[in-house]
Amino acid sequence: MTAADSTGPSAEHATAGLSVATKATVLCEALPYIRRFAKRVIVVKYGGNALAGNDPAAALAYFAEDVVLLRSVGMQPVVVHGGGPQIGDLMERLGKVPQFVDGLRVTDSETLEIARMVLVGKVNRDIVGAMNVHGPVAVGLSGEDAGLIAATPRDEALGYVGDIAAVDPAILRKLIAEGLIPVIATIGSDAAGQAYNINADTVAGAVAEAVGAEKLIFLTDIEGIRTDPGDPATLVTRLRAAQLDDLMSSRAVSSGMIPKASACAHAVRHGVGSAHVLDGRVRHALLLELLTPEGVGTMVVGP
Amino acid sequence: MTAADSTGPSAEHATAGLSVATKATVLCEALPYIRRFAKRVIVVKYGGNALAGNDPAAALAYFAEDVVLLRSVGMQPVVVHGGGPQIGDLMERLGKVPQFVDGLRVTDSETLEIARMVLVGKVNRDIVGAMNVHGPVAVGLSGEDAGLIAATPRDEALGYVGDIAAVDPAILRKLIAEGLIPVIATIGSDAAGQAYNINADTVAGAVAEAVGAEKLIFLTDIEGIRTDPGDPATLVTRLRAAQLDDLMSSRAVSSGMIPKASACAHAVRHGVGSAHVLDGRVRHALLLELLTPEGVGTMVVGP
Amino acid sequence: MTAADSTGPSAEHATAGLSVATKATVLCEALPYIRRFAKRVIVVKYGGNALAGNDPAAALAYFAEDVVLLRSVGMQPVVVHGGGPQIGDLMERLGKVPQFVDGLRVTDSETLEIARMVLVGKVNRDIVGAMNVHGPVAVGLSGEDAGLIAATPRDEALGYVGDIAAVDPAILRKLIAEGLIPVIATIGSDAAGQAYNINADTVAGAVAEAVGAEKLIFLTDIEGIRTDPGDPATLVTRLRAAQLDDLMSSRAVSSGMIPKASACAHAVRHGVGSAHVLDGRVRHALLLELLTPEGVGTMVVGP
Amino acid sequence: MTAADSTGPSAEHATAGLSVATKATVLCEALPYIRRFAKRVIVVKYGGNALAGNDPAAALAYFAEDVVLLRSVGMQPVVVHGGGPQIGDLMERLGKVPQFVDGLRVTDSETLEIARMVLVGKVNRDIVGAMNVHGPVAVGLSGEDAGLIAATPRDEALGYVGDIAAVDPAILRKLIAEGLIPVIATIGSDAAGQAYNINADTVAGAVAEAVGAEKLIFLTDIEGIRTDPGDPATLVTRLRAAQLDDLMSSRAVSSGMIPKASACAHAVRHGVGSAHVLDGRVRHALLLELLTPEGVGTMVVGP
Amino acid sequence: MTAADSTGPSAEHATAGLSVATKATVLCEALPYIRRFAKRVIVVKYGGNALAGNDPAAALAYFAEDVVLLRSVGMQPVVVHGGGPQIGDLMERLGKVPQFVDGLRVTDSETLEIARMVLVGKVNRDIVGAMNVHGPVAVGLSGEDAGLIAATPRDEALGYVGDIAAVDPAILRKLIAEGLIPVIATIGSDAAGQAYNINADTVAGAVAEAVGAEKLIFLTDIEGIRTDPGDPATLVTRLRAAQLDDLMSSRAVSSGMIPKASACAHAVRHGVGSAHVLDGRVRHALLLELLTPEGVGTMVVGP
Amino acid sequence: MTAADSTGPSAEHATAGLSVATKATVLCEALPYIRRFAKRVIVVKYGGNALAGNDPAAALAYFAEDVVLLRSVGMQPVVVHGGGPQIGDLMERLGKVPQFVDGLRVTDSETLEIARMVLVGKVNRDIVGAMNVHGPVAVGLSGEDAGLIAATPRDEALGYVGDIAAVDPAILRKLIAEGLIPVIATIGSDAAGQAYNINADTVAGAVAEAVGAEKLIFLTDIEGIRTDPGDPATLVTRLRAAQLDDLMSSRAVSSGMIPKASACAHAVRHGVGSAHVLDGRVRHALLLELLTPEGVGTMVVGP
Repeated sequence: MTAADSTGPSAEHATAGLSVATKATVLCEALPYIRRFAKRVIVVKYGGNALAGNDPAAALAYFAEDVVLLRSVGMQPVVVHGGGPQIGDLMERLGKVPQFVDGLRVTDSETLEIARMVLVGKVNRDIVGAMNVHGPVAVGLSGEDAGLIAATPRDEALGYVGDIAAVDPAILRKLIAEGLIPVIATIGSDAAGQAYNINADTVAGAVAEAVGAEKLIFLTDIEGIRTDPGDPATLVTRLRAAQLDDLMSSRAVSSGMIPKASACAHAVRHGVGSAHVLDGRVRHALLLELLTPEGVGTMVVGP
Repeated sequence: MTAADSTGPSAEHATAGLSVATKATVLCEALPYIRRFAKRVIVVKYGGNALAGNDPAAALAYFAEDVVLLRSVGMQPVVVHGGGPQIGDLMERLGKVPQFVDGLRVTDSETLEIARMVLVGKVNRDIVGAMNVHGPVAVGLSGEDAGLIAATPRDEALGYVGDIAAVDPAILRKLIAEGLIPVIATIGSDAAGQAYNINADTVAGAVAEAVGAEKLIFLTDIEGIRTDPGDPATLVTRLRAAQLDDLMSSRAVSSGMIPKASACAHAVRHGVGSAHVLDGRVRHALLLELLTPEGVGTMVVGP
Repeated sequence: MTAADSTGPSAEHATAGLSVATKATVLCEALPYIRRFAKRVIVVKYGGNALAGNDPAAALAYFAEDVVLLRSVGMQPVVVHGGGPQIGDLMERLGKVPQFVDGLRVTDSETLEIARMVLVGKVNRDIVGAMNVHGPVAVGLSGEDAGLIAATPRDEALGYVGDIAAVDPAILRKLIAEGLIPVIATIGSDAAGQAYNINADTVAGAVAEAVGAEKLIFLTDIEGIRTDPGDPATLVTRLRAAQLDDLMSSRAVSSGMIPKASACAHAVRHGVGSAHVLDGRVRHALLLELLTPEGVGTMVVGP
Repeated sequence: MTAADSTGPSAEHATAGLSVATKATVLCEALPYIRRFAKRVIVVKYGGNALAGNDPAAALAYFAEDVVLLRSVGMQPVVVHGGGPQIGDLMERLGKVPQFVDGLRVTDSETLEIARMVLVGKVNRDIVGAMNVHGPVAVGLSGEDAGLIAATPRDEALGYVGDIAAVDPAILRKLIAEGLIPVIATIGSDAAGQAYNINADTVAGAVAEAVGAEKLIFLTDIEGIRTDPGDPATLVTRLRAAQLDDLMSSRAVSSGMIPKASACAHAVRHGVGSAHVLDGRVRHALLLELLTPEGVGTMVVGP
Repeated sequence: MTAADSTGPSAEHATAGLSVATKATVLCEALPYIRRFAKRVIVVKYGGNALAGNDPAAALAYFAEDVVLLRSVGMQPVVVHGGGPQIGDLMERLGKVPQFVDGLRVTDSETLEIARMVLVGKVNRDIVGAMNVHGPVAVGLSGEDAGLIAATPRDEALGYVGDIAAVDPAILRKLIAEGLIPVIATIGSDAAGQAYNINADTVAGAVAEAVGAEKLIFLTDIEGIRTDPGDPATLVTRLRAAQLDDLMSSRAVSSGMIPKASACAHAVRHGVGSAHVLDGRVRHALLLELLTPEGVGTMVVGP
Repeated sequence: MTAADSTGPSAEHATAGLSVATKATVLCEALPYIRRFAKRVIVVKYGGNALAGNDPAAALAYFAEDVVLLRSVGMQPVVVHGGGPQIGDLMERLGKVPQFVDGLRVTDSETLEIARMVLVGKVNRDIVGAMNVHGPVAVGLSGEDAGLIAATPRDEALGYVGDIAAVDPAILRKLIAEGLIPVIATIGSDAAGQAYNINADTVAGAVAEAVGAEKLIFLTDIEGIRTDPGDPATLVTRLRAAQLDDLMSSRAVSSGMIPKASACAHAVRHGVGSAHVLDGRVRHALLLELLTPEGVGTMVVGP
């Protein structure tokens, strides 16, 4: 081919120095993975922290390019995202002082409105926009849309912090069937229409189970799960759900990792093929995980 | 039937005093309209002002109930909304001072981000939520989703104020085909992924044309179009697009009504059956317009 | 809307005196019922007696309008009818003297031919015609068509009086799927092609079971089921199949009501949601039963 | 195959005397015709006279068997029938004296009701029943069903004698698509629901045109069209529509044959492949015409 | 019909001497069989020996005509063929000397290549070609295509003689659904892509089971199965699988018949309706077996 | 991913030395091409000479892997092949002496049979087999199957050498729609079922036009088209059909390249996006051409 319509950040690091043989080798290596995961749903939790760093816009662009590429080769990605830091930013700008009960943030109705604006109207939009520069492929959703996430209040004292009562994947299936990539902001609602803010890791796991995903992938800012959180050398590349349970029981898993680890263990016991904690700071981590034999991070399998 | 699962605001004003004959009469009267508009798209612009008043939440609940009822009897409603006052509120809370060029508000990137958060993360959510208490029927969309609205900058001096370059109704058709009600926030994006804020009246008209709607309906806060804006007695119930052009040329139409009037005239000349300006302050105005012989407001027909 | 294509008898009693608020209230009240019964089959037995009175043509027109309206809002009505009085009329005109065995009319081949002509060629046609003034929506069927009703002789001494051997609902499902209203004359046939006249109440129940109807409705000429047939004050508005069995055992149900009561009790035990005996003399009884919270008549539920 | 489920009148004349070679020859000879007419609509007008003779029930059984066989090998037959003699019989039994205007029978409302009962409730039923002994394949229709035949009055003085205003073949297409054989009684209706009796030859031609039939076949009681009605030796086996026009102009075609001849000439000029007048008294005339190289009767081709 | 597009060998023995009544009789006799086997798969093993004789091209033409006729009347034929004699011919011409181990021919890679060329490139082509003169209806397949037949080596000493590991009927279902006739050459392949030659009788049985065929038919060169291979008078017209087992145990079935008999017994115990051994030397044996009450050969039924 | 099911020849040259960044770069570079050619048909002529060399089996394996990879990423490859040298081999082994008329080989019926055995039964099989080690994706076809290639004799003196009368792509469309890769041997047949051998370059072009291919690619054994056949430095990377015409007129194109060049020029003028002559000796030439910006060989575009 003598002319390209190359787009995205990959253009910056040219491939000019690679031999055609090298290129062919890499492409061929990806073949069995492409075949294996064709028409399988891949749920990716895209966490704010995973993308922290000098250039968050570039990090998002790499992530978006990966997701669109996976779709191009026949996989069916679904993205779930949170946005804690961004919610905090707007609260601060509005002079809103956070309140806590037993260490958990109280979500009054004003906080909920701020969270919803930020998650649905900013973070979700940014992700959708980053994908849609590659074509009209992404559609933003809130858990409120078409009954996707039914929520219940977790604890009266916490206000509008919700737990998941049920996930109705019908709207996801419809969008996936049309070749679209759903991008989900984790606001749910109850039967009376009241919205709740829900933990994004938990939503990612529940969505993966509801659609029978092949993989549930958490993109975060560490290399994976360690048996000793403070020691990078204790990184585990593959473990069973039971082993992960043991690590959580023995407090070997850091508190910030608990929701992800729990979601991983639950998902692989409820129909999801495997669950992964990847280092989102590695460029194209998603692509490398799915299309090359090199593992990046930790893989959890059942039971 | 001896038990009902009645929901929504209608429960408050009971029908106990009506004879069954009266009820039957009203239901039968609606029959020919239900038949006529079955499987036809009805695009409704839901304006912030139309819903002003003592109890905006109740106004929204009535509106949502109407839209869901229309869908229940086989019509295919699409809702487009703006949110100017709500954007102004958040700007003020954030200490952002509006700037104007030739009377038009300059939209810098911070203003755009605020507008997007409010439109997509608040107003859109409120409308979707009000509908979904009746079942999982509504899905919120931004014009950025799946390439729905391609935008171009209007004027460099105005920043991210956009004009419509193209409407791709594919995602609307897919959602409608699934029995869902799309609710559209009027943010568009260009090929590079840059978002723009677009006039909601203009979007409503363009969407109605793109999907070949049967009706384009503006719910606003006056009775309809008047030949003398200051004189309620000059309300016109029905006029042709050419007559509307004359009214606009002669400055008989108020400036605030111009985008609506222009959209009406353009739409009926481009495949839309009729366009309407209704008084959204009348409870169930939409229902009455579509299911009874009484007209409420002004109807514009081509050519 | 400023122009209507109003049709049917409802035009005669104008709604001019009703406020728009009243109209809106009635329409909204119907919403939960429309939603609940969408895409559900409603089998209505339309009995000759239910429509007796000063103006049978008007009664039929009201009934037809109701059935068409139910279809317009998404229900799937199926009509089953008899025609005893009309058969008697033609027999008399042809000088045919009825013969009885143990109180049951003997149906020789000439009587059968008369019954078939009247049911299929007159009553069925009149019902189909009354509906089709609203559009091409109704299709007349005999139980002989496409194997709909397989019959067996009840008793040799009675001639061509049949019992139902089987109902094959395939043709009903096909017509319903096309948006059509099947209107069924209750002639069945055996494997050799011999036709039989079958009790219409029994056919209505068997059809409702075969298609898994939501409701089985008998339109007749009394207010409903009474615990004392002679005392209107003993009207029951709701009872269980077991209670209905008791009433039949204790002879509290009149003999003319027995086939209907039996069909009701059997149907709700075999997959039909509920069964109803309504007063067909009330104008729009069907509409009121299905679209308002007021009950008209008796509802039977399982078990 | 060592066991058969043979049905129908063919069982009576055994094939025991035929060699297997003879059988194979006949079956193979039919192959190109089966292939040529697969999925093509064949409209057959089944006239009362064609089936006159010693044993009308046997004639009907042969006809029904032929139609079902044609469907079994992939053709799509549609049957249209009249029933003049049978209408006359019932009128006579009811003491109704026919009245004529210019030689045409006046059809008052009582006559119409009789005609409708006989056509829809007797003749149509007999034909459907004769087919359905072979399986649930036939469905009776009146032109009133689902808007099939829109009628207009021919002449006020003739009462309810109708002309065809339009044929809406939607219901025919739906039934054919389901593998069913529509059998049409020739009653039409106007927009107000008034029924009319329509000439069956004319209906057959109009239906054939509306569905784009491959063949329009009139089964009658003469060998075909003759250039001299009184001379069997003048039978024509094949002629063009223009030649048929000439025969009609020169009064060479008998008056009873005129509606058939007109329908033939019109049909082949409006999309029907060929039109045929066959001798219905020949057993299996339909089968022989369609599945063997021997012609029976007259074929009309365009233009 | 006055003109035919008759093709195929049947043209040679004219039907001129047959009365139309005879023809109609034969056609009607076929009706119940056509109805019974519509949309049923009929797997036919076409053996080289069955077609031996003075004029193999004519034999093939008769066979092809039969298969195409069966498809024309709605059956779904699948053809499986071998080609032993033809493989032998080419080996001889190439000077290749057959080698045997325990009486079984050793298939080295050169022999395999010869077998594959002959089966896929000659015999398969000849059969496909003979059918396609009747229209584009046949498609040649090797068991290697689209994973149809997975093979395993039978015995190292025999080289590339394969057993069936699995049959994947997906490609057959797709072709049948498109109205095509698959013609299968019995080469299978293993996971590494190595081809194997497999016994055609065994393949025919396995294919019939995999597609749930109505019938499995072996066309061979004897009248059927005999209880004494040397005595034509001991021909059995119908027997159960258990009886066939007994005949095989007692060596009453000739060695050449063993693979066919085994396949028959296995097939009727694994979902195939019946299995047949027919005399392929009888012209149109297939047609006569399937469309007339006369049996030709032996029918095996379960269990 | 920590485990791979890597298959195919690519395993031999490991990617261990490549950084993950390099791999990601190559994969991302392929994205725009994958998106551009998704669901587009790519017709590849696979010539015997292109694969000549030390290890033809390895060359075939590389080619097969490329084709399967292209399908995996959403393209729709169709392979057309010849097999001249292999035909010559078998003729020689059978002692068949080639005869020529005006430099063209005479194809008598024995030669045709040999050609057909080799093309359909050997070369086609080898290609299908090489692909199907990656899964059940390839299906071999002869132009005789399902009426794919209608042939006419070119010249009586040449015997069964055919020209293309018509290509019916229906079978190709069906197989492609099922996700299968058609592999076409270039034997055509006439209406009487007579087979002909047809030039494979010509078939490739005609097939590409018939299916509206995006690309027509000739894999051969030179770097591409040169303006001076003898001088590698005159290789042209891109030219228009008109320029190619000029090269052919001026005899600058070598005689062996003429059929390819003609097919290229014709194809791009008849709906094919572009035509290519690639050097099949470069490993993964197909992959590199379609998924990287580097061109390998000559591209022809219209007009």
